[in-house]
Amino acid sequence: MLQSPPAAPGIREDEIDTPALLIDLDAFEHNLDHMAALLAPTRARLRPHAKTHKSPVIAALQASRGAVGQCVQKVGEAEVLAWGGVRDILVSNEVVGARKLARLTALAPIAEVRICVDCAAQVAAVEDAARAAGQRLGVLVEIDVGAGRCGVAAGPEAVALAQAIAASPHLRFDGLQAYHGSAQHLRQPEERAAAIGEAADRARRTVEQLRQVGLDCPIVGGGGTGTFPLEAASGIYTEIQAGSYCFMDADYARNQAPAGPFRQALFVLATVMSAPRPGTAVLDAGHKAVAVDSGLPLVWQRPDLHYVSASDEHGALTVGPGAAAPKLGEKVRLVPGHCDPTVDRYDWYVGVRGGRVECLWPVAARGAMA
Amino acid sequence: MLQSPPAAPGIREDEIDTPALLIDLDAFEHNLDHMAALLAPTRARLRPHAKTHKSPVIAALQASRGAVGQCVQKVGEAEVLAWGGVRDILVSNEVVGARKLARLTALAPIAEVRICVDCAAQVAAVEDAARAAGQRLGVLVEIDVGAGRCGVAAGPEAVALAQAIAASPHLRFDGLQAYHGSAQHLRQPEERAAAIGEAADRARRTVEQLRQVGLDCPIVGGGGTGTFPLEAASGIYTEIQAGSYCFMDADYARNQAPAGPFRQALFVLATVMSAPRPGTAVLDAGHKAVAVDSGLPLVWQRPDLHYVSASDEHGALTVGPGAAAPKLGEKVRLVPGHCDPTVDRYDWYVGVRGGRVECLWPVAARGAMA
Repeated sequence: MLQSPPAAPGIREDEIDTPALLIDLDAFEHNLDHMAALLAPTRARLRPHAKTHKSPVIAALQASRGAVGQCVQKVGEAEVLAWGGVRDILVSNEVVGARKLARLTALAPIAEVRICVDCAAQVAAVEDAARAAGQRLGVLVEIDVGAGRCGVAAGPEAVALAQAIAASPHLRFDGLQAYHGSAQHLRQPEERAAAIGEAADRARRTVEQLRQVGLDCPIVGGGGTGTFPLEAASGIYTEIQAGSYCFMDADYARNQAPAGPFRQALFVLATVMSAPRPGTAVLDAGHKAVAVDSGLPLVWQRPDLHYVSASDEHGALTVGPGAAAPKLGEKVRLVPGHCDPTVDRYDWYVGVRGGRVECLWPVAARGAMA
Repeated sequence: MLQSPPAAPGIREDEIDTPALLIDLDAFEHNLDHMAALLAPTRARLRPHAKTHKSPVIAALQASRGAVGQCVQKVGEAEVLAWGGVRDILVSNEVVGARKLARLTALAPIAEVRICVDCAAQVAAVEDAARAAGQRLGVLVEIDVGAGRCGVAAGPEAVALAQAIAASPHLRFDGLQAYHGSAQHLRQPEERAAAIGEAADRARRTVEQLRQVGLDCPIVGGGGTGTFPLEAASGIYTEIQAGSYCFMDADYARNQAPAGPFRQALFVLATVMSAPRPGTAVLDAGHKAVAVDSGLPLVWQRPDLHYVSASDEHGALTVGPGAAAPKLGEKVRLVPGHCDPTVDRYDWYVGVRGGRVECLWPVAARGAMA
């Protein structure tokens, strides 16, 4: 359920009720501008992933810097974006179930909506839904480019699916989904380069084989915050689907030689709620407040403080030798281990600049899982 | 933000949009009845923890079976329960910050609200808030009974805090908070018995020392789903604060000789959204849909299927030797590794009985972190 916002515009950062999800607006805007500048000289356009931000407001800021549309993973996210003004949405994922497909085709009058498939049964199901809605839907074939999750094999199997799409009266073959998720988090640049080199080879080979059967491939989509310069330079990818770049997190910060100087823009503000023993403090932010699937959060600009364990509503801090323990009531910024699922805990972004709250933006697609 | 419910009353379970948070109503009601029966012959009363369920509807069902009130961890949870009809609420946690304390005292006209403290500065802060609101607030001293998180030391330090409370004109000393969180998840019964034996000793010693200075101690609260029979049998605990018992989860199921025959009542319903290779299937429920802080989910009544990895929106299943892979579109029930944070991802409970949806209940305090 929607909760009250933890702040009001104009108050100081230290007056915000915690835990709260903060955007450092200067760092955030830098990241948006920086990504636009990095992609400008390439042939790849930016279609940011809204699974990270879940916000039509942020989508609009990305569009104003050249983004061609948004990616989503879920029908519920597509609905929230379409209702919030986004006019070009790619569901970069399979959607299974007649009710969900009907919800998706119902968006066609207000937005261009594309979807991915990775098997023939789904081509038939999407065709049925599009016919029932009286729409023509753009469909991408997801190919497995090395992550081994969803996706049909590159090459002939993918071509056969594309032909099935092209032969469906209410579908249009629009290209390939070629995202390599696990490559984003490989620590060494040469590991990432090898993974994306292989991904691009599979995509290129498939595009060539499509051409041989007379099918054009206008979109080849993929690339995340950990690898996008590689996809953008490949010459085969046409759309970059990075999401985390606008916020960043502790996991991406651990990547060696990160993709570019993106700044940490997302924080969970927490308060010391108990300090019962010397050298320790307890924060009011546990793993309900900050996702721990990719590691514990870091304490921003306080390398002497260590967030050492998370329970549901508590985070335990230890204090490095010689350092001062934070006092009861003191606030600290946490850098989430993983930005996407952390955002998905909150109803509100609190935008801060110069120590003051500047804006409150709803995390409008929070919990839009279905 | 609040999302649309994934189902409507009367539809079949296999028609529910997924991921969805299911309550098996038969198992759930069994658990409520069973806990009431277990505690009836003891001196301990049940004050269930709403950090698990976050629902005034469920609080009312617990009250109808004898629960004396509810526990919460957060002011936002107290607000949602009070606005939803709960008349006796213990914040079993410290609350730091003038704005939060003002929100809490603002509930006093509609509910009895108590709070915990573990230091003198907080006694003064709560007194200030109660005086400003023109209220008298019941306060418990949290003692560290072995978990080493929040809480003042048992014995003289706790007594000094109780005296400070009793000497505050707008506060009333109401007892001790003596919860041992980490003991809940010790695997062996003898480990749990040792931990709660020590906790009860610390509580008993403190109650005796309070009596020596003329302070009565009407409430001694603690006990969770993993240990509550021990607290209930101790003779010193007056209130049991179990939460998970109404739902259960895979982590509690791993405890040796669990506290009682509680049944698994909470599930995440998921759909096979891709089955690209033999022996594997991909579900539409990743770690945004099911909490993984206490381990990956199990597949209910399908020991041949293994949920082996969670990404943001995908869960990978492998199939045991000789078993049939689930088909595209097939639905499976997942048993969450940890019930509390899984519930906190969802806006709606879908109550099912006999294969049909019977009710939709809002997870009204979802995301009430501040």
